[in-house]
Amino acid sequence: MKPWDGIISEDEQKAYRAAGFGRPSGWGKRPALLIIDVQYRTVGTVSRPFWDSIKEFPTSCGEVGWKAVANIAPLLAEFRRNKWPVLYPHVAPKASYDGGRLAEKVPAIMTIPAKGYEFVAEVAPLDGDILIPKKHPSAFFATAMASHLIDLGADTLVVTGCTTSGCVRGTVVDAFSYNFRVVVPQECVYDRSAASHAVNLFDMSEKYADVMPTAEVIQRLKAIEAEPKRGAA
Amino acid sequence: MKPWDGIISEDEQKAYRAAGFGRPSGWGKRPALLIIDVQYRTVGTVSRPFWDSIKEFPTSCGEVGWKAVANIAPLLAEFRRNKWPVLYPHVAPKASYDGGRLAEKVPAIMTIPAKGYEFVAEVAPLDGDILIPKKHPSAFFATAMASHLIDLGADTLVVTGCTTSGCVRGTVVDAFSYNFRVVVPQECVYDRSAASHAVNLFDMSEKYADVMPTAEVIQRLKAIEAEPKRGAA
Amino acid sequence: MKPWDGIISEDEQKAYRAAGFGRPSGWGKRPALLIIDVQYRTVGTVSRPFWDSIKEFPTSCGEVGWKAVANIAPLLAEFRRNKWPVLYPHVAPKASYDGGRLAEKVPAIMTIPAKGYEFVAEVAPLDGDILIPKKHPSAFFATAMASHLIDLGADTLVVTGCTTSGCVRGTVVDAFSYNFRVVVPQECVYDRSAASHAVNLFDMSEKYADVMPTAEVIQRLKAIEAEPKRGAA
Amino acid sequence: MKPWDGIISEDEQKAYRAAGFGRPSGWGKRPALLIIDVQYRTVGTVSRPFWDSIKEFPTSCGEVGWKAVANIAPLLAEFRRNKWPVLYPHVAPKASYDGGRLAEKVPAIMTIPAKGYEFVAEVAPLDGDILIPKKHPSAFFATAMASHLIDLGADTLVVTGCTTSGCVRGTVVDAFSYNFRVVVPQECVYDRSAASHAVNLFDMSEKYADVMPTAEVIQRLKAIEAEPKRGAA
Repeated sequence: MKPWDGIISEDEQKAYRAAGFGRPSGWGKRPALLIIDVQYRTVGTVSRPFWDSIKEFPTSCGEVGWKAVANIAPLLAEFRRNKWPVLYPHVAPKASYDGGRLAEKVPAIMTIPAKGYEFVAEVAPLDGDILIPKKHPSAFFATAMASHLIDLGADTLVVTGCTTSGCVRGTVVDAFSYNFRVVVPQECVYDRSAASHAVNLFDMSEKYADVMPTAEVIQRLKAIEAEPKRGAA
Repeated sequence: MKPWDGIISEDEQKAYRAAGFGRPSGWGKRPALLIIDVQYRTVGTVSRPFWDSIKEFPTSCGEVGWKAVANIAPLLAEFRRNKWPVLYPHVAPKASYDGGRLAEKVPAIMTIPAKGYEFVAEVAPLDGDILIPKKHPSAFFATAMASHLIDLGADTLVVTGCTTSGCVRGTVVDAFSYNFRVVVPQECVYDRSAASHAVNLFDMSEKYADVMPTAEVIQRLKAIEAEPKRGAA
Repeated sequence: MKPWDGIISEDEQKAYRAAGFGRPSGWGKRPALLIIDVQYRTVGTVSRPFWDSIKEFPTSCGEVGWKAVANIAPLLAEFRRNKWPVLYPHVAPKASYDGGRLAEKVPAIMTIPAKGYEFVAEVAPLDGDILIPKKHPSAFFATAMASHLIDLGADTLVVTGCTTSGCVRGTVVDAFSYNFRVVVPQECVYDRSAASHAVNLFDMSEKYADVMPTAEVIQRLKAIEAEPKRGAA
Repeated sequence: MKPWDGIISEDEQKAYRAAGFGRPSGWGKRPALLIIDVQYRTVGTVSRPFWDSIKEFPTSCGEVGWKAVANIAPLLAEFRRNKWPVLYPHVAPKASYDGGRLAEKVPAIMTIPAKGYEFVAEVAPLDGDILIPKKHPSAFFATAMASHLIDLGADTLVVTGCTTSGCVRGTVVDAFSYNFRVVVPQECVYDRSAASHAVNLFDMSEKYADVMPTAEVIQRLKAIEAEPKRGAA
């Protein structure tokens, strides 16, 4: 059962199969974890239903965000235990000159209170993690993300956070374009729309990334962990 | 009636309204037209139903593509009459070394016959149009697109072609990130999945672009045409 | 008399002439001013000879920097009077994870005291100016510079600051590649090496930018100022 | 004896030492060779003195180019023997719409005959090499260079070709910014100006790359060759 079953019809799924889409891009040897925009502005300071949560921050996804946070936590623990790199692309507070198209399409996004920009404590960065402030959907656009990943020698990106249809999707498309292998643990990303969430998972799965249950991601990471270690490279 | 009504529930649409998404980003004064990937490989050499069409090219969207071509034609005529710039981001034939993630996710895409790469005659480029060969979803990634648009002084991009959930979506997100105003005439883009097409139009409309009927786009362009001309700048 | 006369031989200058290099790229209508890295770390807190100044900050250029600051001030005043955009690409304090190649080539650059990162008061930013923190030589690399300039509709960049052979040069090459017109007022850029300063001005003048005396730049800006104003575009 | 001795004074070299510049960035384990713009347009169809050679192609560097080609050849052989990747960033013939700033600064560059775009036979690409057509100085700007290098897992770039003060310099700055290790074999790059060539080698050596004799580069490559091979990664 895929997250998009019932939303993308069986016929359309067959059409993609027939056209040859959706093959696995597979795993490399040097994974890095991206936790995108998991700040209180996207989940609220406590877990509340969507309609209550947007009263605190209009950008909150509410309960579905907190469920994803609970799924990211064990994945993060796996990375920490292996001392694999963890990167936090995140939205920085807006300056007066940060307007442009974003301020026109989503004006409410320009006036989020400072608390909203704090990282959610359950999966917050530690010393040594890489913070990537960003102003655009993709974590690669106008950031040093590619430079950090090249320095780390990362070849496989595990992408979590929000929103599935926004910054996660934008980041995944750029990561694919840069030729990183991309994995999306499907319970670790979240969105304010269930339909858009599901269709974006489908789009990514067909064209850009391997979308799979978090449990399977952790299993695959443990397989990398178990391999004989390489040298300094 | 929006193209995504019935697929994105009324409740979810209300949720976006409440959160403040989907405001218009509006029009500038210097439009440019992008016709993305309108090559025989995405529609077939003649209009056929999807399942027949993919026998010719696995990447074909079939009939829906030809309908979009018929809608792009009058829009293109409007740009030609005003001598406004027209750009053709398109997929170039693959070289042996063009592998990477794409070859893994969609191996069938690597072996399309040469005819598939020809532009569809009904909306093909003329001398003076700008050709942008590309190897990734976004027409901006690893191309001179931004340089051309800056040289032209373009401020508003009308984005057409295919697929809605692939190269159109990727291009729109990057155009938005570069702070161009982006307009998507909803009958001028096409996809092999009706559901994904609709949801991607919704995503773009909420966050990155103004999505509207082609007739309205033409009307807005005529309003720009009617304005007193500026000088050489 | 050009700044590179005596360093680039007459013969070599003739060779460039014969090969067709060094034509003017000219002025547009919408200038923007870039003041790059004019922070105390590149000039010292007071004007001192180079060898004294590097005792305060190893990255200081000393007196030549303060001379350039005095030349930037009237240029900046011209931009402020016209309310033309002013952008400040600058080096942000280093985080523990900002290593990579920079930390290897120039380790001393990683431990500059906080005062060094402050903007030099004489030409410091005001509210409404655009701050561009950067971690690489070019002000365009991994920053939102291009997005800001597109949003502003800028077509001509006047580039000042330091170092001529480092961040100025890198920024000018990228600005040229993006198809902005680039002007370098020769007394408004500075470097720790007089020879490298002169040769980099020559390189930029031959290939990427119009290099000219600051007085001439101000004259050209006054000509733009005197033109009948365009509309909202 | 460094190539810039006598052009950059001893005092200025001491100043860089004192400021902490010019440390080695070192070698990784996975080298890739870049041969930039080694086409007949930059050396002429036969080796002739500069002033004769520019009669054939105004962009030719003449004899110094042919000397560099002779030095690139054994380096290339070393890469071929190890089946390490070789990439050819090169200038593609100009289309009518390839104007912009380049056509203004160097109009002669727009009308080079077709023969000029052919690769110099002595170091020409073979099947399996990666061709990177480019329109800007840096081989990374608006190209898939970064994507190819990430796919290859390359960590160290050996940069050769021309011109030292143009495309080589631009490419080296971007490679450094992306956090690749960069090595410039000093006899394998060439330029139409001896002074600018030397100063650009100095700039790169101080800030972005390890500049060294070709013989030393080959020695270092043989050391990598001799290491026990790693697995599939």
